[in-house]
Amino acid sequence: MDGNSILQLATPCLLLDLERLDRNVRRLNETIGAKGVTYRPHLKTAKSVDVTRRVLPSLAHPVTVSTLKEAEVFAAAGLTDILYAVGIAPAKLGRVVELRRKGADLSVILDSVEQGRTVAKASAVSKERIPALIEIDSDGHRGGVAPEDGETLAAIAAVLAADAKLRGVLTHAGSSYSSRNREEINAWAVRERDAVVSAASRLRKAGYEVPVVSVGSTPTALSDIDLPGVTEVRAGVSMFFDLVQAGVGVCTPDDIALSVLTTVIGHQKERGLMIVDAGWMALSRDRGTAAQPIDQKYGLVCDIEGNVLEGLLVLDANQEHGIVGMCEGSAARLPELPVGTRLRILPNHACATAAQHSAYHVVQGGDPSIRALWPRFGGW
Amino acid sequence: MDGNSILQLATPCLLLDLERLDRNVRRLNETIGAKGVTYRPHLKTAKSVDVTRRVLPSLAHPVTVSTLKEAEVFAAAGLTDILYAVGIAPAKLGRVVELRRKGADLSVILDSVEQGRTVAKASAVSKERIPALIEIDSDGHRGGVAPEDGETLAAIAAVLAADAKLRGVLTHAGSSYSSRNREEINAWAVRERDAVVSAASRLRKAGYEVPVVSVGSTPTALSDIDLPGVTEVRAGVSMFFDLVQAGVGVCTPDDIALSVLTTVIGHQKERGLMIVDAGWMALSRDRGTAAQPIDQKYGLVCDIEGNVLEGLLVLDANQEHGIVGMCEGSAARLPELPVGTRLRILPNHACATAAQHSAYHVVQGGDPSIRALWPRFGGW
Repeated sequence: MDGNSILQLATPCLLLDLERLDRNVRRLNETIGAKGVTYRPHLKTAKSVDVTRRVLPSLAHPVTVSTLKEAEVFAAAGLTDILYAVGIAPAKLGRVVELRRKGADLSVILDSVEQGRTVAKASAVSKERIPALIEIDSDGHRGGVAPEDGETLAAIAAVLAADAKLRGVLTHAGSSYSSRNREEINAWAVRERDAVVSAASRLRKAGYEVPVVSVGSTPTALSDIDLPGVTEVRAGVSMFFDLVQAGVGVCTPDDIALSVLTTVIGHQKERGLMIVDAGWMALSRDRGTAAQPIDQKYGLVCDIEGNVLEGLLVLDANQEHGIVGMCEGSAARLPELPVGTRLRILPNHACATAAQHSAYHVVQGGDPSIRALWPRFGGW
Repeated sequence: MDGNSILQLATPCLLLDLERLDRNVRRLNETIGAKGVTYRPHLKTAKSVDVTRRVLPSLAHPVTVSTLKEAEVFAAAGLTDILYAVGIAPAKLGRVVELRRKGADLSVILDSVEQGRTVAKASAVSKERIPALIEIDSDGHRGGVAPEDGETLAAIAAVLAADAKLRGVLTHAGSSYSSRNREEINAWAVRERDAVVSAASRLRKAGYEVPVVSVGSTPTALSDIDLPGVTEVRAGVSMFFDLVQAGVGVCTPDDIALSVLTTVIGHQKERGLMIVDAGWMALSRDRGTAAQPIDQKYGLVCDIEGNVLEGLLVLDANQEHGIVGMCEGSAARLPELPVGTRLRILPNHACATAAQHSAYHVVQGGDPSIRALWPRFGGW
């Protein structure tokens, strides 16, 4: 750690506000718990054992991951109930078996008979019944079996039955990210719920047990919709939140726990611009808010304590330069911030911005003291 | 290394084709050498000691970096002539002095009297004359002193003179990335050249020595323009090339040395789509070609040997999923590629895609053998 205050940190770097993290996780637990279903956090945003320890009530708590690397790191840290929620490829089954043999209850997802056969074959060869969930398409967004396609559902269940194990059904309404208000979020939540509940019901009618019925995306996880028939909700970004989720309306900028600490390195006074040392390498190239009514460009600028400087945005980014100025139509004037001034930038997309950094500098609210350095990992 | 063939590698991962790398570097050396100026490679794209050793004629060769982390890693590897080409912030001068004391001839850049004073002060305190180049604005793109602003140029030179050192002038026409043909590239090269040459001449008339006159950007580095008065050319992406540079017209897709190896994990047959295991985490969120006449979406798809599959693109990307299909208007049909098929994806922007990975798997042309695993680093 470079000193014990963010005033001494080498910039750019990543800050994580514990106060906001704890508040966001409390809200998720309350909202999802009130519906009588389990919250299975997605760890693809955090990619950190320390963050995971902070947000889980115990290591036995169920989690979701997006890579086998995540599964391996979290299993080594003592987590046991792990769902690998990306369609399984044949070449990855060796690592899945390996992790299960080491004691992790790792499950996989798939959406074709072809994949079902490879999972069944790997199970038979390894004598390790790999539990699989069938991915259901609730939004025409990516993969998944159509919920009304009972034939494919039963065919997949049948190839799994002999040597592997049908664990359940799962969906992710990625399209809910395009929501603009609570009504739209709630409509996506209904689609997610109805898709998996009807698929589960078809499978049960065909004689299969379906213990897990899983939905999840950050917007829908915080919907107002009841979830009868659903057993668990997955969500990742919602621990940290970001400007895309603020645009969707499930949080405000003051809920965003993640920020990039940066330093002013120059001015272009006649153009009303400042240059900071956080470019897209530190902020990521993610411009998720570009498709929203309020485009936050490369991020919203806060002072060193995390208070939003109204109207001040990272308007553009080069690899190691951020170009800061007032957003179009802002009545406020560019604040005078000399070279050396430190600022915090709120990210478009927490998953993408966090991925550009190797550690979280943990702070609490506006206090500049660094409480901890929590490493994060990447890779596959 | 996971086996000695890319057929056994865990996907997604990054491939570097040595044949193409060598050819690209040869072309740069020939083009720039023919103009009688020095090629000072920018190492911000590669961020790898092994790549650097491969492309430099000797460790004494001049290089450019975008972070002090790069300067530290390359100095530790034995490089000595290092230009840190991002406007210097006061808090970073301690590390600059440290590196110079260890023997690296590290120079910095700046574009204000304010920065000049902090560099002079740090030089006086450390008794280590820090060499600085004045950044010149050749395209209204980012930072830099206007070349005709002789007053500011002389004022910066004056504050440096007493305790630090004026090393020269430098510019980067980032706007040249928007070029669509050789004429436009050549026009930007003329602007770069004329901006620094005229700034250098103003400084010399004011009585200052200006040993270094530095220009550079990947498009202009390969222009047809002669460079009288210029001493060196910087360029980074051009070692690897990418789809943005193919769109600009300085290379073809067959010159692109960098690709992401991926595996087919599913199909959406009725929609004419395939799902691969390279999402934006492996490809980056960079969509540089979106602003070009030919939008290559998240990347152009090649077979396992690196031959372009005409019209096949990564149309969209989630964190760990790429959605592959035919580009709009393509007459070709979607090839039948079963789950498990391996493909190579050519990147929009080499700097951004490489940054998502921790190593290069080095191959040679279409041969699947892995010649080496070259680690790369990130951070600041």
